[in-house]
Amino acid sequence: MDDIALAEVTRGGRVESLHHGRIAVMDDTGRVVRALGAIDKPIFPRSTVKALLALPLVETGAADRLGLADAELALACASHGGEIRHAETAASMLAKAGQGLTCLECGAHWPTYDAAAHALAATGAQPTALHNNCSGKHAGLICLSIDQSLDPAGYIDPGHEAQRQVTEALVMATSVPHNETNRGLDGCSMPTYAIPLAALATGFARFGTGRNFSSGHASAAARLRSAVASDPFMVAGSGRFDTTLMAHFGNRIFCKMGAEGVMVASLPDLGLGVAIKTDDGANRAAEVALAALLLDLGALLWNDTDREVLAGLAHQVMKNWNGREVGTLRAAGKG
Amino acid sequence: MDDIALAEVTRGGRVESLHHGRIAVMDDTGRVVRALGAIDKPIFPRSTVKALLALPLVETGAADRLGLADAELALACASHGGEIRHAETAASMLAKAGQGLTCLECGAHWPTYDAAAHALAATGAQPTALHNNCSGKHAGLICLSIDQSLDPAGYIDPGHEAQRQVTEALVMATSVPHNETNRGLDGCSMPTYAIPLAALATGFARFGTGRNFSSGHASAAARLRSAVASDPFMVAGSGRFDTTLMAHFGNRIFCKMGAEGVMVASLPDLGLGVAIKTDDGANRAAEVALAALLLDLGALLWNDTDREVLAGLAHQVMKNWNGREVGTLRAAGKG
Repeated sequence: MDDIALAEVTRGGRVESLHHGRIAVMDDTGRVVRALGAIDKPIFPRSTVKALLALPLVETGAADRLGLADAELALACASHGGEIRHAETAASMLAKAGQGLTCLECGAHWPTYDAAAHALAATGAQPTALHNNCSGKHAGLICLSIDQSLDPAGYIDPGHEAQRQVTEALVMATSVPHNETNRGLDGCSMPTYAIPLAALATGFARFGTGRNFSSGHASAAARLRSAVASDPFMVAGSGRFDTTLMAHFGNRIFCKMGAEGVMVASLPDLGLGVAIKTDDGANRAAEVALAALLLDLGALLWNDTDREVLAGLAHQVMKNWNGREVGTLRAAGKG
Repeated sequence: MDDIALAEVTRGGRVESLHHGRIAVMDDTGRVVRALGAIDKPIFPRSTVKALLALPLVETGAADRLGLADAELALACASHGGEIRHAETAASMLAKAGQGLTCLECGAHWPTYDAAAHALAATGAQPTALHNNCSGKHAGLICLSIDQSLDPAGYIDPGHEAQRQVTEALVMATSVPHNETNRGLDGCSMPTYAIPLAALATGFARFGTGRNFSSGHASAAARLRSAVASDPFMVAGSGRFDTTLMAHFGNRIFCKMGAEGVMVASLPDLGLGVAIKTDDGANRAAEVALAALLLDLGALLWNDTDREVLAGLAHQVMKNWNGREVGTLRAAGKG
């Protein structure tokens, strides 16, 4: 099936750029509820699956034994902007595991949130691996390793026992194989596995409902959703789509972005999971497409404020450096 | 005609993202040499036309009377990264016009080159309009205004005499109307006019050869091309495609990026102009598509080193934060 127009950028009353992609809406049994475009074609989920990768941390009891707080569990699911609380929370996860910064194998980069990068630079400091947007996920694998008396070194490699356990969680959630035949390497040096968009959506339907999950997975998923809902700043940060959406909807919607234009969402009340991939890898398009889809899917659920929040995210006015309106970023065909 | 696949991003041996778009190759008479996709459809050229907007600054004699150096003329054509030399050169243009920073109407933003932003933040300073990537273009309009004893205030507005003159240069170069019917507002608050991709390419064929230009435009174009070739850092900056390409090719290729995935090039030796627009607005794709096109168009012109430079830009290895190879960004279908 052909991919569809997801989002467009307008200027001067004309469409300046147009993004195509695919949308899968599935229930937790793996039934297709809505399919727009080639939903069986494999895509790399990238950071969208961080919450699934965090399931063993909770399910094994490691999180409780190490005393991880909600903020820390939310950070384990995060692609954060490297703001001060993000870096401090990653450090506290490592401290609870009795480890330090050098244990992180994600590499260092400047905070992706520009204001945080400028504030860090103003102190004369350089970024560390704590500022890497994936530091919470990595700290989570280190916690999982330490709790099982495993040497955390090499936790990013497919052969490491902790990595094997988090990969197994992906297999259980999505019901598709994750092995060397569909493996790619992510920006933070952990594997990412190409799977059908439909399977990714099914995984997040299950993450939302807890059905067709093991009972351990189901309670771990509920705990993680609750942690993220209680501190949505931790999962992304200032001005970011995921944080904005969950700050309003709380436990009613879980969503997570991934690099190269991937978005997932769980809608527990509807028993649905969503996965979106833009063909060109643009995250701006996946975001507005998700907001527009949620408006539609939850038509009977949302109150006026809910609809206003979603409509604002699905149709964004773009302003220039002088604050003058130059155009819009909006769901395609909703002009 | 359908748009074509221009560039792809690969990971783990699979295509992760794919960019479509259009390519127009024209000669200076407006004859189509190569058309891939809908080249008659209007697009916003954005910053690609800065060198055309600088023609009146040179042609009227303003640049000579004010004593503008090559670096300053190159900056007038630039979308720069806000590095120290860029900001200093914008300030020196203003000083030669007897004006100061407050005269700039582009708005302030942090340097787009991250290292320059971090270095600026480390000094405790905030960015000014000098760091705006368009500050050289704006300083050029201020110089043009002052030289003609015009009040520069409002030089960004279509009704200002200096703005009228630079818009007239666009009309002469591209042979298509620029008025309120195709006007949009750019990020720096100057107008940008939607014109066919083919007309944009024709304009840059003329910019390269000087033919089908007035003699004044022709000599101004030659002067600007020479200025950019002598100091290609000024037109973009560290690590940027335009600078890298022109640092190698000098006066043999002029190229310029524009926001939302536009690229133009002049090939004086072949008498050709090129314009590329990605449908989705991705600049990474326009860059690799231009490199691949230049490899092909200039097959009989380039020496081995030329081909090596272009091939490296048309097929870029992507590495992660640990320096490990994760995939490629490359021209589509050249895998």
